[in-house]
Amino acid sequence: MEIREFQESIRQIYLARDAKRGGDRTFLWFLEEVGELTRAYRRREQENVGEEMADVIAWIASMANLLGIDLEGEILKKYPKVCCLCRSNPCICPFAG
Amino acid sequence: MEIREFQESIRQIYLARDAKRGGDRTFLWFLEEVGELTRAYRRREQENVGEEMADVIAWIASMANLLGIDLEGEILKKYPKVCCLCRSNPCICPFAG
Repeated sequence: MEIREFQESIRQIYLARDAKRGGDRTFLWFLEEVGELTRAYRRREQENVGEEMADVIAWIASMANLLGIDLEGEILKKYPKVCCLCRSNPCICPFAG
Repeated sequence: MEIREFQESIRQIYLARDAKRGGDRTFLWFLEEVGELTRAYRRREQENVGEEMADVIAWIASMANLLGIDLEGEILKKYPKVCCLCRSNPCICPFAG
């Protein structure tokens, strides 16, 4: 599935509710999901980690819809199949641990 | 761009470095980007918000690569173009603010 298609499906399913809730509270939902992803990762719950990653990305899509941000465009601009800093693939930046 | 294609490009660019760094420290980078997204949103820096969203999703892709998780599969499983709870489009769950 294309990233743009995913963002559009989240818009169709959730935009009316996201708009009613507003940006600040929708952002809190996103952060709650980040917490759930962190817990699943800490507990090494592999199945849950994948599901929580999907949730985090879905809430980012909700925020992007509220703010009029094109996620696919932003991703292609920042990561055009090369590192966003050294512009190489694979990345040859000084290693950051 | 397909979600799977994006995850694969992050694998090509960063997997060797992500593996050298390890999951725990890579997860810390993800959380750092969540912090940067939060700051950009709080400051209403629309341009930065889009870029930070791209960074957060890229670090999720790095974690997914390390853990052998197929992000597109997880997203399609959780959000098959209907709400993950009520299975409707648009969502008809009781409103959660």
